[in-house]
Amino acid sequence: MIIDGLQCGHFDRASFQGLQRAGVLGVVNTTGFWEGTVESLDNLAKWRDLVRANADLCEIATSADQIRAIAASGRVAVIIGFQNANLFEGRIRLVEMWAELGVRVVQLTYNNQNDLAGSCYEDEDSGLARYGRQVIKEMNRAGILVDCSHVGNRSTLMAIEASEQPIAVTHANADSLFPHKRNKSDDVLRALKDTGGVIGCASYRNITGDHYCKTIENWCEMIARTVDIAGIDSVAIGTDRSHNFTAPDYAWMRTGRWTRGVDYGAGSATNAGKAAPPDWFQTLDDMAVIPGGLKSAGFDQAEIDKITHGNWLRLYAQTFRA
Amino acid sequence: MIIDGLQCGHFDRASFQGLQRAGVLGVVNTTGFWEGTVESLDNLAKWRDLVRANADLCEIATSADQIRAIAASGRVAVIIGFQNANLFEGRIRLVEMWAELGVRVVQLTYNNQNDLAGSCYEDEDSGLARYGRQVIKEMNRAGILVDCSHVGNRSTLMAIEASEQPIAVTHANADSLFPHKRNKSDDVLRALKDTGGVIGCASYRNITGDHYCKTIENWCEMIARTVDIAGIDSVAIGTDRSHNFTAPDYAWMRTGRWTRGVDYGAGSATNAGKAAPPDWFQTLDDMAVIPGGLKSAGFDQAEIDKITHGNWLRLYAQTFRA
Repeated sequence: MIIDGLQCGHFDRASFQGLQRAGVLGVVNTTGFWEGTVESLDNLAKWRDLVRANADLCEIATSADQIRAIAASGRVAVIIGFQNANLFEGRIRLVEMWAELGVRVVQLTYNNQNDLAGSCYEDEDSGLARYGRQVIKEMNRAGILVDCSHVGNRSTLMAIEASEQPIAVTHANADSLFPHKRNKSDDVLRALKDTGGVIGCASYRNITGDHYCKTIENWCEMIARTVDIAGIDSVAIGTDRSHNFTAPDYAWMRTGRWTRGVDYGAGSATNAGKAAPPDWFQTLDDMAVIPGGLKSAGFDQAEIDKITHGNWLRLYAQTFRA
Repeated sequence: MIIDGLQCGHFDRASFQGLQRAGVLGVVNTTGFWEGTVESLDNLAKWRDLVRANADLCEIATSADQIRAIAASGRVAVIIGFQNANLFEGRIRLVEMWAELGVRVVQLTYNNQNDLAGSCYEDEDSGLARYGRQVIKEMNRAGILVDCSHVGNRSTLMAIEASEQPIAVTHANADSLFPHKRNKSDDVLRALKDTGGVIGCASYRNITGDHYCKTIENWCEMIARTVDIAGIDSVAIGTDRSHNFTAPDYAWMRTGRWTRGVDYGAGSATNAGKAAPPDWFQTLDDMAVIPGGLKSAGFDQAEIDKITHGNWLRLYAQTFRA
């Protein structure tokens, strides 16, 4: 069984079938990037419809036990996540309401600074702001996992310290292995290790690099090196795989409504389009090779279980509330 | 004629009558603190109704010429201002639309860090964020004056540098004269001087102090000392006077929806309620003593004209667009 700490895009029936065939029986989705409260409710409503329409293949899970049960039935457990805190619209009291509606993972901020924290793409990372501290406290209480994937390193370290619960970096890599603004410093990886947090290793080419995208062995070598830094209990998978992503989706994800200009996010002016998937990861079915790849990298079965699903399940059990 | 760079609270017919009697024939209002786009439209709609219902006493002005014309008719020119950027809700393209609806002054952020900039009340001022730079550029283009009163000193200096137009600190004092997080460093005051910006000196006791609140002479002494730092062309009046303010208004202004706790804003745990107005400024009518106070402080008529209205009119003429 594999749990993918983050995927995004427009899932459809084929997505769930592919995940099922690959043994990916748990996945955190991306319910929103920039959307405010009402738009986020709309997006969640669409996800509920999608999951209901494919109930033979998937179900929304709000606890680690539910994920296990859904996986045991051979279906895909969908964990509702957001890549930004705009769903709260500055309202601390909405945190518990979103938790009641099933949201279990929220990233403090996406590509831009906000009222919570600084982003990895700002010239300077502000650190955690007053409202950000309040939201983390409330997320701890309400049972929503704090995600710092696109959050700046400084804010991430402050979030780890401020949070009473371990936090996640659902989809990023070690900056020391592939230097990129979106990737995390060894300081962050060690702080995750020290506090029971988890990083999901990504396969998004822009933040993974061609070498680790070439073969499953190479990608698992990256995971092994990440384990060297963060420890076997703090490394998992968070591919950042996108489903049915089109040019308008990239435009929305990167420029949203915050600029009249162009922003390339993890890409660049010379690499503005859709990044090619890893050579080893052309279709969702290819995720089935991950456990074997980890074995080739020298991990034993207990370690493979931790990386593929155990670490996420442990973290979810610790942070999610019914 | 006096122009007050910022007032807040629930204006009523008596407010306009008081302003009129005192010769305050231009005033920037506070249309919103934390309100998002739709709530801000609601607030603007209420202001339009209020001004229409009192058309014999006031009118909304969107240009310096209009302010002059309304003042010449003996009525109060209302300039529509917001103390936060939530009216844009992260949407760069709403800036010009709000300008079309008559908004002429927008503060980059209020008491908390946001997606534009850092606040004076955060432990650390983030500086200007990516979206903040974009919004300033768009406000310059659309003809909305950038206000940095509650913005941190660092972000304020960055805003002055980023803005193609001079900016305002509509309501604050010199930190070197009365040390307070809400007041501005001499660096900021000198940068305003160098760029044609304007600071409106406040009379809100929490940021002015008992000494400068004691007599009109003392308050005008503070203005004279501010002129020593910022120069005669960059100092004006921005009292921060609140109309019909009640405990729920303070709660909204300070804690908004961002915390379950208590925030005291410019007050403190031992000074949580409504700050007493300056001894010399018990009613709006008392504003009539300002020109005389400035004369006693040694200003000549040309200087008094600049401080009481000329500097604001010059800045408004330069930044507002029809």
